[in-house]
Amino acid sequence: MFHFASRLNHAIRSKQTPALVGLDPRFDQLPESVIANASERAGSCERARKAAAFEEFSKRIIDVVSPLVPAVKPQAAFFEELGSTGCIALERVIRHARDAGLIVICDAKRGDIGSTAEAYARGYLAGADPAAAAWAADALTVNPYLGIDTLQPFVDVAEERGAGIYVLVRTSNPGAAAFQDITDVGGKTVYQHVAAAVESLAGKSIEDGFGSVGAVVGATYPKELAELRAVMPHVPLLIPGYGSQGAGAEDVAAAFRDDGLGALINSSRGINFAYNKAPYSEQFAPKDWEQAVEAATRDMIADFAERTAAGSLRTPLGDS
Amino acid sequence: MFHFASRLNHAIRSKQTPALVGLDPRFDQLPESVIANASERAGSCERARKAAAFEEFSKRIIDVVSPLVPAVKPQAAFFEELGSTGCIALERVIRHARDAGLIVICDAKRGDIGSTAEAYARGYLAGADPAAAAWAADALTVNPYLGIDTLQPFVDVAEERGAGIYVLVRTSNPGAAAFQDITDVGGKTVYQHVAAAVESLAGKSIEDGFGSVGAVVGATYPKELAELRAVMPHVPLLIPGYGSQGAGAEDVAAAFRDDGLGALINSSRGINFAYNKAPYSEQFAPKDWEQAVEAATRDMIADFAERTAAGSLRTPLGDS
Repeated sequence: MFHFASRLNHAIRSKQTPALVGLDPRFDQLPESVIANASERAGSCERARKAAAFEEFSKRIIDVVSPLVPAVKPQAAFFEELGSTGCIALERVIRHARDAGLIVICDAKRGDIGSTAEAYARGYLAGADPAAAAWAADALTVNPYLGIDTLQPFVDVAEERGAGIYVLVRTSNPGAAAFQDITDVGGKTVYQHVAAAVESLAGKSIEDGFGSVGAVVGATYPKELAELRAVMPHVPLLIPGYGSQGAGAEDVAAAFRDDGLGALINSSRGINFAYNKAPYSEQFAPKDWEQAVEAATRDMIADFAERTAAGSLRTPLGDS
Repeated sequence: MFHFASRLNHAIRSKQTPALVGLDPRFDQLPESVIANASERAGSCERARKAAAFEEFSKRIIDVVSPLVPAVKPQAAFFEELGSTGCIALERVIRHARDAGLIVICDAKRGDIGSTAEAYARGYLAGADPAAAAWAADALTVNPYLGIDTLQPFVDVAEERGAGIYVLVRTSNPGAAAFQDITDVGGKTVYQHVAAAVESLAGKSIEDGFGSVGAVVGATYPKELAELRAVMPHVPLLIPGYGSQGAGAEDVAAAFRDDGLGALINSSRGINFAYNKAPYSEQFAPKDWEQAVEAATRDMIADFAERTAAGSLRTPLGDS
């Protein structure tokens, strides 16, 4: 099994859920015990201390969720903020997740032209063989603003390596419409133009129903989500916005095919920092933050199984 | 002097040129002597060897051009391709350029939402104090696709630290029009909408005629460049596409105000690998590649001085 869509679908079927756990280490929200451990190991350099804490926190989340979900999505920005010491931590976190058998989507939203785009693609898209790229990811989020020609180098490297890309189509932020919703004289919006290009790129190499080219579509815009699922039938979706950003299972239901495939639904803060929020903060002490991560992950999985077609992923004999 | 525009204008006036040297280390085009040195120091690990070569090559270019030009633009992708070992090299290259008194624009084309955008901004935008951010850059290139609200965290950090951002408005690649030229019913293109937003953001904090928010506009589209200079009077421009991408001095002339301020014109490959191209390859042996860098830089500076308003930057008594 080599093609990204086959590997992704296999992971989703194996775990019987489309739940994707984002890894968003935010220093001021980390459990005290994680910070104390890191300070002991990394000494007084602030960036090294934070990087050690990010690495430990992310790896421990991976250890908790790897039996439960098909994929994780580390957010590059938080690691990069710390400079190269953060980048070392990100490399290790990605490798830890790959070693745990997870699909890893590096959320770095890269985009550039020609041979520069190719450099990003070669650096991040390891695909089927984690040793093929420095960052060892299965997939990368990519920004389409520069044009379709600038997506092609990412597509080429992805297909060569069994990797995937997720192109930003409709993002989950409140101001997403500013440029994405600009509408041409034919009534077609920018995000619809991008969606058409993404479906076309995905359609060139389909396996197990989907291409290697996916799309990011925010759960916070359910109407657009339903429309985009229809116009991109061969495109695996990555849906941010569930949980902390305000969307519920009903808002993401349109992302799935009847068999429960077709989308990963991400939650980052709602899982990572569950220990800090009701109802988990009432059930778990801060030192038991990993139990809160597990409980929140199981609740998200149940939510999708009960309220969306993702329930079809479960065997007739019930969940495992 | 703290504000980005004041610092940038001061650098342009001091060097009497808007020439910007891109640092695009491409391993297969590096001079043999640089690769040999790096192999000796870094041993057999391929990524470490390449990173050492990139660092040496970039620092030696900086040493050659720092007396001649106001700014350099390292391309993050080539360093990132090598993973964290490349990121360490990039950090060192940026610091070396700052130590040489250059304005450093990190070309990383970042973009994300809310607090994630803020993490990128805090990590890259050091501004007036190189110690303020891990990557120590004066400015960062930023992708606007996600919306105006996602540019704001970059603007806030930039203004707080005397840093700048350059928002992609019209890029230099052949397929730039695919999404950037989508035109609304009022006849306004996507890039014009982005330009209006950029001018509005820049206008909120002007010093020495310009804001902290700049724009990337490709030299390969001269008609659009003239139009964009007019609608973004307070926006410092970063113009890629001169030289290897095919544009000449006449194509970038419209980027300048009459006093020669308002734009930096970038050349990367044409300077970095001048030793490999006529006429420099006929004048300099490969081992004298730094002399080719200097000659190509001086030729670019003379080209702008003779054929654009950048000539106004020179004192009446002639160039220095």
